[in-house]
Amino acid sequence: MSGTRFTNEQIDRLLRPKSVAVVGASDRKGALGATLLNNLVQYEFDGDIYPVNPKREEIQGLKCYKSADDLPEGVDCAVLAIPRPFVLDTVRSLAERGCGAVVIYSAGFSEAGEEGMKEQLELGEIAQKYGMVIEGPNCLGCTNYIQRVPLSFVETNMKTPPKGTRAVGIASQSGAIAAVLATVLHPRECYVSHSVSTGNEAGSGVEDYVEWLVDDEDTHVIAMYVETLRRPQAFIRAARRAREAGKPIVMLHPGKSNKAQESAATHTGAMAGDYQLMKSKLSREGVIFAETLEELGDITTIALTCPSLPGAGMAVLGESGALRGLAFDLAEEIGLDLLELSDEDSPALRAALPEFVPVSNPLDITAVGLSEPEIYTKSLTALLEDDRVGSVVASIIQSDPITSEIKFPAIMKVLEDGSFTKPLVFAGVDEGARVPQEYVDGLRKVGIPWFPSTERAYRAISRLSDLSKRDLSDRSAEPIAVPGLDQVNGVVPEYKAKELLKPLGIAFPESKFAATADDAAAAADSIGYPVVMKAQAADLGHKSDAGGVLLNLKTADDVRSAFEQIFKNVAAYNAAIELDGVLIEAMGKMGTEMIVGAKNDPQWGPVVLAGFGGVTAEILKDVKLFTPDLDAKQVEEGLLDLKQAAILKGYRGAPALDTAALADLIVQVGRVMAGNPAIREIDLNPVIIHPKGGGVVALDALMLVDQG
Amino acid sequence: MSGTRFTNEQIDRLLRPKSVAVVGASDRKGALGATLLNNLVQYEFDGDIYPVNPKREEIQGLKCYKSADDLPEGVDCAVLAIPRPFVLDTVRSLAERGCGAVVIYSAGFSEAGEEGMKEQLELGEIAQKYGMVIEGPNCLGCTNYIQRVPLSFVETNMKTPPKGTRAVGIASQSGAIAAVLATVLHPRECYVSHSVSTGNEAGSGVEDYVEWLVDDEDTHVIAMYVETLRRPQAFIRAARRAREAGKPIVMLHPGKSNKAQESAATHTGAMAGDYQLMKSKLSREGVIFAETLEELGDITTIALTCPSLPGAGMAVLGESGALRGLAFDLAEEIGLDLLELSDEDSPALRAALPEFVPVSNPLDITAVGLSEPEIYTKSLTALLEDDRVGSVVASIIQSDPITSEIKFPAIMKVLEDGSFTKPLVFAGVDEGARVPQEYVDGLRKVGIPWFPSTERAYRAISRLSDLSKRDLSDRSAEPIAVPGLDQVNGVVPEYKAKELLKPLGIAFPESKFAATADDAAAAADSIGYPVVMKAQAADLGHKSDAGGVLLNLKTADDVRSAFEQIFKNVAAYNAAIELDGVLIEAMGKMGTEMIVGAKNDPQWGPVVLAGFGGVTAEILKDVKLFTPDLDAKQVEEGLLDLKQAAILKGYRGAPALDTAALADLIVQVGRVMAGNPAIREIDLNPVIIHPKGGGVVALDALMLVDQG
Repeated sequence: MSGTRFTNEQIDRLLRPKSVAVVGASDRKGALGATLLNNLVQYEFDGDIYPVNPKREEIQGLKCYKSADDLPEGVDCAVLAIPRPFVLDTVRSLAERGCGAVVIYSAGFSEAGEEGMKEQLELGEIAQKYGMVIEGPNCLGCTNYIQRVPLSFVETNMKTPPKGTRAVGIASQSGAIAAVLATVLHPRECYVSHSVSTGNEAGSGVEDYVEWLVDDEDTHVIAMYVETLRRPQAFIRAARRAREAGKPIVMLHPGKSNKAQESAATHTGAMAGDYQLMKSKLSREGVIFAETLEELGDITTIALTCPSLPGAGMAVLGESGALRGLAFDLAEEIGLDLLELSDEDSPALRAALPEFVPVSNPLDITAVGLSEPEIYTKSLTALLEDDRVGSVVASIIQSDPITSEIKFPAIMKVLEDGSFTKPLVFAGVDEGARVPQEYVDGLRKVGIPWFPSTERAYRAISRLSDLSKRDLSDRSAEPIAVPGLDQVNGVVPEYKAKELLKPLGIAFPESKFAATADDAAAAADSIGYPVVMKAQAADLGHKSDAGGVLLNLKTADDVRSAFEQIFKNVAAYNAAIELDGVLIEAMGKMGTEMIVGAKNDPQWGPVVLAGFGGVTAEILKDVKLFTPDLDAKQVEEGLLDLKQAAILKGYRGAPALDTAALADLIVQVGRVMAGNPAIREIDLNPVIIHPKGGGVVALDALMLVDQG
Repeated sequence: MSGTRFTNEQIDRLLRPKSVAVVGASDRKGALGATLLNNLVQYEFDGDIYPVNPKREEIQGLKCYKSADDLPEGVDCAVLAIPRPFVLDTVRSLAERGCGAVVIYSAGFSEAGEEGMKEQLELGEIAQKYGMVIEGPNCLGCTNYIQRVPLSFVETNMKTPPKGTRAVGIASQSGAIAAVLATVLHPRECYVSHSVSTGNEAGSGVEDYVEWLVDDEDTHVIAMYVETLRRPQAFIRAARRAREAGKPIVMLHPGKSNKAQESAATHTGAMAGDYQLMKSKLSREGVIFAETLEELGDITTIALTCPSLPGAGMAVLGESGALRGLAFDLAEEIGLDLLELSDEDSPALRAALPEFVPVSNPLDITAVGLSEPEIYTKSLTALLEDDRVGSVVASIIQSDPITSEIKFPAIMKVLEDGSFTKPLVFAGVDEGARVPQEYVDGLRKVGIPWFPSTERAYRAISRLSDLSKRDLSDRSAEPIAVPGLDQVNGVVPEYKAKELLKPLGIAFPESKFAATADDAAAAADSIGYPVVMKAQAADLGHKSDAGGVLLNLKTADDVRSAFEQIFKNVAAYNAAIELDGVLIEAMGKMGTEMIVGAKNDPQWGPVVLAGFGGVTAEILKDVKLFTPDLDAKQVEEGLLDLKQAAILKGYRGAPALDTAALADLIVQVGRVMAGNPAIREIDLNPVIIHPKGGGVVALDALMLVDQG
């Protein structure tokens, strides 16, 4: 796979080809080369078509070439519908003839074992050497719905977006998902501009296509299915550009569960990355995550149809009290932000409603709208005009044509009464209701998506409005250099790690390193009793297990005998470990134990993990990841989102804890990681958090440095 | 509301009336009395219709009565489409004329304040006195789809189940949900037998209608929407009968979130009960819980269409590796039990697949089925014949008519190749695909439900197969009487509670009560040092807060001075508290703290709560409810399902803990609660759980007794 990205011009030869060779052309029903050729002919591909088949003179009235070697020079794109064993030689010969791009359908490469992997790497080298875009292998091809170029071996429904219509570009590592997404969107009158399935990504990856789609004027939203981003930094750059261009990226990425990660690894032969790390990094770039295939379609639908994306604070116009309760349950489960509204704070809405209907959210206007349909128009208008409202869902019982006739026009009328840029989603509550199609089409035309169920509208809006809650403005950490870092390498023992980090504002208990018993006693005298003594050596990972930590030493004599004891303990634990000495440290007040860890991921860059310490937190995975570009306020918000956050806020009369100080520490560690790529890991465990104003103190510190 | 249930014969007069009076009949479009009369006339109601309207001679060709007083004696059912102020008098007069049932549409009763509540209670009294069934007020009416009796004020789609078709009976506290559910089911060729919306339940509740539906031979499944069960014990009896009759009950019950509970309280004027308690009790009676309206329809669809309910262990035939990963993520999230399958353990499936497709679950047969459709038939047959498989989902890319033509018949053919009683669900992955309707209808006819998305099939099957995991066989706790219980009342102090419970096999540390300092010292001498001393008085709820617990007393002198100290401490804390004396107790080994609590709910009966102790567990609500009829094995399984269960299993080299002993304790407490209704609460907190074989010890005990 290429390390540098392809230029848009190179990718043009795949996605906007002027000539296409079909290697393995056929007219046998069901053959890949037949459906492909069919697609091209059926949709009247505008350029030259070169079928290649050694046994035929012509197919579908087109002249046949005997082999790839017979093709004219400089064909834009060749599609290979041939068995795996012939692929590599054919690609080489096409590259030599100046072919610009190759689509490889065949499977059996990196996902199939060593030999396949070897050939796949060779394909990647050819792509690099010749600047030839390779799509696949093990892919479904691509379709340009704008210039009508179907390079896929499945039946293509060539729905070209009408001029001026917003359209989605699809970049997917799964051909099935790319095809399915187009099938799902089309009947909703949502259009696709381009669809690319990248398969094993031998010579081009989703990163390249996203770059291209950002610059494509026919693309307004980008939908992706990704199992592994092979070049995270390239994707981050592309995602940033997409955001700047106002093109939302909606991504479906399995891997929350371990089993999904394993499955991805066997599926396309790629190792699944760290899901949470990926998600924390891409969230910062404005990527919207779908959790299911249904959500991928639904989120894309809203992004394409509505005039803007939902902001925080959803409001619902409903017609039943029962649906209110169900909405609360679901909102809590999926983290949906339902705005609170009341008679007192919503005068405009109050005026729009009959007296006996209280203002609330979800609103329950009861069945009164059947006889007074203007209530729909007025109350939706009031909601859309309310600045606190980020999106509106009309959750409607549609029943039958008679009922639809009352409600749909009243809701459409909202658009006549005002010009809104806020998203309004029409969500039926009775899927399968006999709604005349004209009403559904009418909604879509004016920018109101029609959803078959309220649950789905809620889920999609929840994911979308999550984006609006992210403050994406502060986008780069101020890196800090660690003076003296060049003096260490490998595992850095506690006392050295503390020496390096203390000057950077990371709080540790007062401590002194001591190499002899006398030094230790003197150190303890100067610090003041009681003290802790900790054995120090790079090789000593688990000090406590080795008897390497002795607490509550109250006199100089205690310290001296502890010094001897600690050397004995460690020697008994592992004779190979040679101690540098001990660290004498003040015993501080106890408090709630937190952990702060950080790593410089070779692919994704620096990230800081923080959360509660202890066994329970470990079992519950009660931690969060923070990218170094977040400011302290954002980090603090993240901390207050931990499962046990109640403890931080002051539970049952206990004082609130100093989350601000903890956030500062996390930001500082992030800056250290950003400024020193040689640091692979920092582990502060535990970090004691004291009541508000009392700060935080890291009791232990471990560093892993790789000077390369 | 009535305390005793109505007989089926009484309810027959509502649901199978031979004569219907329409009080407030009208022909003004949109008027409730007009739509109702329309429904009756349109669907050719088989009995007598008596319109009542003081201003008219006839409506729709039917003779009009001036008032309810003019009606003939003994009309089966009168439907009241009149304003609230006239309801009470009309009902009274109807009752006096021997009317068997009344439907009240009007709102404005218990949900509207004190006066409405008063009138509603009067309605209840009339219902009781005359044995007259009252449906509502604040309801949507009812529809008998079998004998075609539409008593609803909304447009009714009278789809009568064909002879021999399974049908669902709907009993709902929300009219909207009842109507919506019918709208959702009908286009799926799923039929409704009867639908009743109970509204405020002045004179009849969902409990009554479920009893009736259990006995109704046209009803095979019961679907419910419930906010509050007003007579839990009556419903439990009905649910048990439903289970014995083989009629699954599917229930949608909001209230997981606090806000939903509040909403239910304002909606129909009923107080929402304890959601978790309700769920634990009804789970034992085989009730299947839907989490959303979508799920209510989907679960009902499977229960109606498939030949049986899904068992544990779902298997999936899929066509894409990407969908595998997504399935794993969703399965983990919703607790769906995906069976593990491999080449080695599944020879029949292995033989059904091409060589390059490994056996797995979900299965990914790739696109090869397009050219070899018999793979669908063979592999689905192999899955359905596999005893480990509890249900099968065919997760299919449908695309277009050409693709559908290949896949649907191959899947339908499964039924020709074998006669299966196992559920098979066809779940499309591309909603909106251009599937010819005949294929969808064909599936339904042979008992295969067609789902628009795989996610939804997974969710519905997950809820349904949850039922198969419940062992419902052991259905009654052996109650234990507590000797001496009649001697206590109100709050029982620790020492007395321990005296009462110890003989029943609940382990406490060795302890002695002492009323004087000398007795205390003697008690400590006989127990052995160190000991704990705890102040004892019924009024002393929080001993520790009052300085009423002194630990680690090592000598008799310690004990004597502690005795004085403890009296001083408590006096300083609250001079009004008079101590009975102190409890001297052996200090035991420390261990993991659990809590066990129990209550006799006045509505629901006894239940035991158990889980982890401490602040974290409290924040995380890491507890489970156990009904007293569960055996120790079932309780242990529940404990191993706690969020922090890893600690019980032995985390990171720590020993596994004695969950069997804890389960025994919970069962024992359940039996005590079941045997002594006078005990309102028992609180054992903390209960120390020791490593396997080491048992459990309750350190504290509190009882609340109400001798009535």
